[in-house]
Amino acid sequence: MRRVAVIGTGHGRFGVRKDATVQELAFEAYREAVDEAAIDPAEIGATWVASVPEYQKQRSLAGVIQEYLGLNPRPVWLTEAACASGSAALHTAWTAVAAGLYDLVAVVGCQKMTELETAEILALMGRVGDVQWESVFGSTFPAYYALFARQHMARYGTTREQLAAVAVKNHYYGARNGKAMFQKEASLEKVLSSAPVADPLRVFDCCANADGAACLLLASAERAKSLGGEVVWLDGLGSASAPMSVLRREDLCSLPSAVEASRQAYAMAGAGPEAVKVAEVHDCFTIAEILALEDLGFCAPGEGGPFTLAGETRTGGRIPVNVDGGLKAKGHPIGTTGVSMAVEIVRQLRGACGERQVAGADLGLTHNVGGIGQYCFVNLFRRE
Amino acid sequence: MRRVAVIGTGHGRFGVRKDATVQELAFEAYREAVDEAAIDPAEIGATWVASVPEYQKQRSLAGVIQEYLGLNPRPVWLTEAACASGSAALHTAWTAVAAGLYDLVAVVGCQKMTELETAEILALMGRVGDVQWESVFGSTFPAYYALFARQHMARYGTTREQLAAVAVKNHYYGARNGKAMFQKEASLEKVLSSAPVADPLRVFDCCANADGAACLLLASAERAKSLGGEVVWLDGLGSASAPMSVLRREDLCSLPSAVEASRQAYAMAGAGPEAVKVAEVHDCFTIAEILALEDLGFCAPGEGGPFTLAGETRTGGRIPVNVDGGLKAKGHPIGTTGVSMAVEIVRQLRGACGERQVAGADLGLTHNVGGIGQYCFVNLFRRE
Repeated sequence: MRRVAVIGTGHGRFGVRKDATVQELAFEAYREAVDEAAIDPAEIGATWVASVPEYQKQRSLAGVIQEYLGLNPRPVWLTEAACASGSAALHTAWTAVAAGLYDLVAVVGCQKMTELETAEILALMGRVGDVQWESVFGSTFPAYYALFARQHMARYGTTREQLAAVAVKNHYYGARNGKAMFQKEASLEKVLSSAPVADPLRVFDCCANADGAACLLLASAERAKSLGGEVVWLDGLGSASAPMSVLRREDLCSLPSAVEASRQAYAMAGAGPEAVKVAEVHDCFTIAEILALEDLGFCAPGEGGPFTLAGETRTGGRIPVNVDGGLKAKGHPIGTTGVSMAVEIVRQLRGACGERQVAGADLGLTHNVGGIGQYCFVNLFRRE
Repeated sequence: MRRVAVIGTGHGRFGVRKDATVQELAFEAYREAVDEAAIDPAEIGATWVASVPEYQKQRSLAGVIQEYLGLNPRPVWLTEAACASGSAALHTAWTAVAAGLYDLVAVVGCQKMTELETAEILALMGRVGDVQWESVFGSTFPAYYALFARQHMARYGTTREQLAAVAVKNHYYGARNGKAMFQKEASLEKVLSSAPVADPLRVFDCCANADGAACLLLASAERAKSLGGEVVWLDGLGSASAPMSVLRREDLCSLPSAVEASRQAYAMAGAGPEAVKVAEVHDCFTIAEILALEDLGFCAPGEGGPFTLAGETRTGGRIPVNVDGGLKAKGHPIGTTGVSMAVEIVRQLRGACGERQVAGADLGLTHNVGGIGQYCFVNLFRRE
């Protein structure tokens, strides 16, 4: 297999984007990536579109995007793995370049969630749970993650303040990211006193539906090196699944797919959690970031709460996490998120993140979860 | 890149399957493939689910399927390219084996279309056309393909009888396929006198929505050879896209994506249309099969109608096409179709098709179209 590099990144503004169709959102990010890499779009051999199609009115989204980007007649398809769709697309695109099928490909994450009515979105989201055994009884995602939080509190003594510290940190960094949906800090008091959603989770423990797009251009080693300068490589990939139904999970204090995917990625990259300098993890709810810290080996099981409260996940701490605001403050356009995470890590490795920059970042990680861990993808990016 | 073989095939009954959930349909086909290949499921490195998710109530379908097949914690994702989803999944799965990432993978096409109301399905299908410029004005798929038919009739003198001959042939073979939705012959008179849908297309010119699943197991050359006996190889792959909107097509007598995808597949396999002994083509409407014959080079442009009427696409003719009944008689569970086509070709190459068997079949082709050619995948399978 050939080594694969990220040679271009693009990232649009996340939020309520009534100003643009989904294909316009895609173009905005794609154009930025093409300009940044300074390549001729005629070089792009194939496109992977990452999106969860049912949230848009437009069906057959990949076809619409490929036409709008002007990339016909080259092939295109859509890859979906719920909220991990962006990483699933990145994995399959990586594989095609590694195999030697294409020298340069595009991965376009794009999602427009605000054109459906809220009731439609709730109905759709509920059906991400097992419709035969669970969602018919009213389970929702905040409820699922509340189960994880309750279990973590009971077993390890995790506190509401520790959960809230995740939100405070991520809003702090969101306020420093011009592409974030919420560019406003939130105090501990504000988080703790926000409206209850599913006990113990409150509004500020939850990320928000958003519109938004991001784009990555991947290239073979030869093509990447021809551009000159340092290269950011995608050197470690891990991907795993776990049972759909909560009733078939053995433990609610960990996502087994995250543990397995990170094991694979670390092995492939030949580096462990101690070598990672910056990470983007899937904080769809505050408890999810705490689980991620433990599943990825950044701290021991049960220590995610105190670790966060102590500031170890801020810039200057042991492992800066979600310093772009995370899903929490940046927003969570579900199909786009995995691509957005990779864009942030690549830019961190290039030292291009301004006041959010993590000093000395040479190895970065993304952790992208679908559902309640039915899917998990972990990637390791290296600058050299 | 490594050479990739198909070592297992499974195919459930197509039709209205009120007896099974979508995961049960998937399991039925998967189990048949695993039994046929006589492999241990623990060998399966990853699963590609091919489906168009919005037709099922269950969201996050890949997660549900992977759990039901008992394949956690190995990775899974869904690949979508409208009616070509099955082939898009096959392409990406092939790439992963060719790259050396896995030695054995599963491709599961599964679709349950009959649990939504007809009105919901019509609304969804309409939105496969460009919702900004076309489907809002009421265009539907029969209408799109009626435009192609009208143009072909005007330019080449194609007749209603020639279109109907496609349906007569495919129902003839459907009556000989125990897995087909319609296992009943249809006379020329019956096809010609069926109810109009979008002039010149009538009910018997159109395929039917269906439930159904099919499965392929792909393996590396080394693993395939270890099973002994002759091997069926996937040796040529082509994939291309075309503009979503009819208004941006230059010609309505051909799908440019089909021409491009077949050019790629023939070049990769080192064989032209004259070497192909049996083909499965995307006959979502009778006119679509005629376009395919021409786009694939089985006959010259404009000759698809007379070629069909002369029996050249029946067993014993120049190139037997859709001798499993095609989408027309077998049914069209949209995400499954590309996988189903590949199952039929692999079984033809193995000489396992009974009274539908094409004598001397050693090279077979599949042609799978999404929408009106926004996507097209062409594959060449070889026995040796």
